Amino acid sequence: MRIETKIANFSNPLYLESGRILEPYQIAYETYGEMNEDKSNIVLVCHALSGSHHAAGVYEGEKKPGWWDGLIGDGKAIDTTKYFIICSNVIGGCYGSTGPMSPNYPSEHAFRFGFPVVTIKDMIHAQMHLLSKLGIYKLKAIIGGSMGGMQALQFGVDYPNLAEHIISLAATYATRPWTIAFNKVAIEAIRNDPRFENGNYKKDAFKEEGLSGLAIGRIAGHISYLSPQSMDKKFGRNYVSTDGLFELFGRYEVERYMEYNTVNFSKKFDPLSYLYIVKAINTFNLSRGYDSLFDAVSRIKAKTHLFSFSSDFLFLPEEMEHIYNMMKRDNKECTYKEIQSDYGHDAFLVELHLFEEYIREILD
Amino acid sequence: MRIETKIANFSNPLYLESGRILEPYQIAYETYGEMNEDKSNIVLVCHALSGSHHAAGVYEGEKKPGWWDGLIGDGKAIDTTKYFIICSNVIGGCYGSTGPMSPNYPSEHAFRFGFPVVTIKDMIHAQMHLLSKLGIYKLKAIIGGSMGGMQALQFGVDYPNLAEHIISLAATYATRPWTIAFNKVAIEAIRNDPRFENGNYKKDAFKEEGLSGLAIGRIAGHISYLSPQSMDKKFGRNYVSTDGLFELFGRYEVERYMEYNTVNFSKKFDPLSYLYIVKAINTFNLSRGYDSLFDAVSRIKAKTHLFSFSSDFLFLPEEMEHIYNMMKRDNKECTYKEIQSDYGHDAFLVELHLFEEYIREILD
Repeated sequence: MRIETKIANFSNPLYLESGRILEPYQIAYETYGEMNEDKSNIVLVCHALSGSHHAAGVYEGEKKPGWWDGLIGDGKAIDTTKYFIICSNVIGGCYGSTGPMSPNYPSEHAFRFGFPVVTIKDMIHAQMHLLSKLGIYKLKAIIGGSMGGMQALQFGVDYPNLAEHIISLAATYATRPWTIAFNKVAIEAIRNDPRFENGNYKKDAFKEEGLSGLAIGRIAGHISYLSPQSMDKKFGRNYVSTDGLFELFGRYEVERYMEYNTVNFSKKFDPLSYLYIVKAINTFNLSRGYDSLFDAVSRIKAKTHLFSFSSDFLFLPEEMEHIYNMMKRDNKECTYKEIQSDYGHDAFLVELHLFEEYIREILD
Repeated sequence: MRIETKIANFSNPLYLESGRILEPYQIAYETYGEMNEDKSNIVLVCHALSGSHHAAGVYEGEKKPGWWDGLIGDGKAIDTTKYFIICSNVIGGCYGSTGPMSPNYPSEHAFRFGFPVVTIKDMIHAQMHLLSKLGIYKLKAIIGGSMGGMQALQFGVDYPNLAEHIISLAATYATRPWTIAFNKVAIEAIRNDPRFENGNYKKDAFKEEGLSGLAIGRIAGHISYLSPQSMDKKFGRNYVSTDGLFELFGRYEVERYMEYNTVNFSKKFDPLSYLYIVKAINTFNLSRGYDSLFDAVSRIKAKTHLFSFSSDFLFLPEEMEHIYNMMKRDNKECTYKEIQSDYGHDAFLVELHLFEEYIREILD
């Protein structure tokens, strides 16, 4: 599947939850498959913290496919021969949608810290405008994992008539202090890195060497995406070099993995954008704006499908179960599955074989 | 209990596991209670990563007691009216024992990165020399939690005739990549902090403002010492200020806690020492030097008492249970208790009421 990114431009204001306004703004998105005549086959995919609108397929001249390519494609669980799939980069992101490094119109200078705080509600609000622009008012399903799963749930609550199915994986009803603490490592590490220059770094400043502050924060991230068991399997107690034992900085395999992946990530991902998206995750609370969580979920009309992963150390299974129990109390159409996996939080990206058939069934 | 630190000086070489030698060296220690005539009432206490030899009592002019003061004292579980208790600062530490900021004799300059890598084996080896100097060849018990629990176990394996009881809490048989990954945050954050100056910072350079690299690493540490449940109880989703929601750096209570505690810690703890002690933790493997873990634990002659905490996210209960199962297979005198607690790893420092009676019984 050869893929191209499209850009949608909006000249009307986006009213944010904070009371601030984004105007104009743009959204980068991709689509896979074909829309049918009665527009009844549309699936919206929402991405997680480090993801983008590039959920599937391969760009011309590149090798690495989109982040959920195993799930989205011809004959796959989200079947591109059957469904028309849309995935857009979140507002605040750094892959084409308006974010802190976008020009603060009418100036040509980037917002940087002048960018308003955006929330999960704002992210889905922006996606509603994108759908309107595409002439779409009804969805077969909205699906996402982690921050994408938060968006799916928020869609269900805020726009109850939009989707037939809400599918949320490895998410929560409100971000707990445990996750906020993991994010705190990144916030402090980025802010304290002198090369971050309090947000006044040059564009592309980190393209070559990365930003160590973001890389360090990302180590904490990777810990929370994995599990003790998956790390045992992946790395064990192996050293990179046999001399490592008595060298102060002799590295274990797990340390090399952390270094390699996090430095690479910091070459590609904008640190200001990271701070803003992390803020959106921290402030996520499905009940905000409603009397209670029960009040919020009682608005949901879509058939709701909740998935957790048994070894998820970031958003614990009990959190998804809590939503399920609340929806059941309200006699909602809702299913919940705790997928048995050692992989940790990232199972929703990696262990597709454990849940893809469920997704296929829901959509069929 | 008013307490004073003592220093023991050693002019003989300390042969390290790496093959390197420390000569001369010193050990800072404290004692509580009185040694009885037949020297049958001696308890050795081993401290964890951020601990010191100051396990109990209060220094003159200070308010804060030692780190296990709730457990050690007159009438307490480790009763100072009955037992003579010794606690020493580990080799590589920064509270009086020889470490990377000690002068590299005969030079007056500090070792810094010239300090040899030390291991848990080296730490207990040094403590053996301290015991010899004090004329002690037999112990009632050796007790410690976390890195202190590693030392207790290593004592049991390497010096099987030394102690009647080994009591190890919240430890493991070998540090898993999961824990090494948490430590990696600190290693990278310290090394990348320009004020660390590649280890060439001025003595006391961080006394006033702390070192943000160490503070950032310590955030990851605090995450691993707590649990999702204990953070819910301690902090919830409360903001420090009501405006926090839509301010990018508006802080949650959990964030304030992390900032306050970690910056304070970085004013007191030497960053080089932190790197060396973390290395000792990472390299801990009870089976090193033996054919297998079974071979190692089969050397233990002491009655061994293992405690884990159900919500420990750093050293999982299954790790202590693994040691127990192995010792039972070998018909060793061994007990294992998984203490039900929401507190996380730090339960061994905080929730004394959950296990102090067990300790009292073991010693009586």
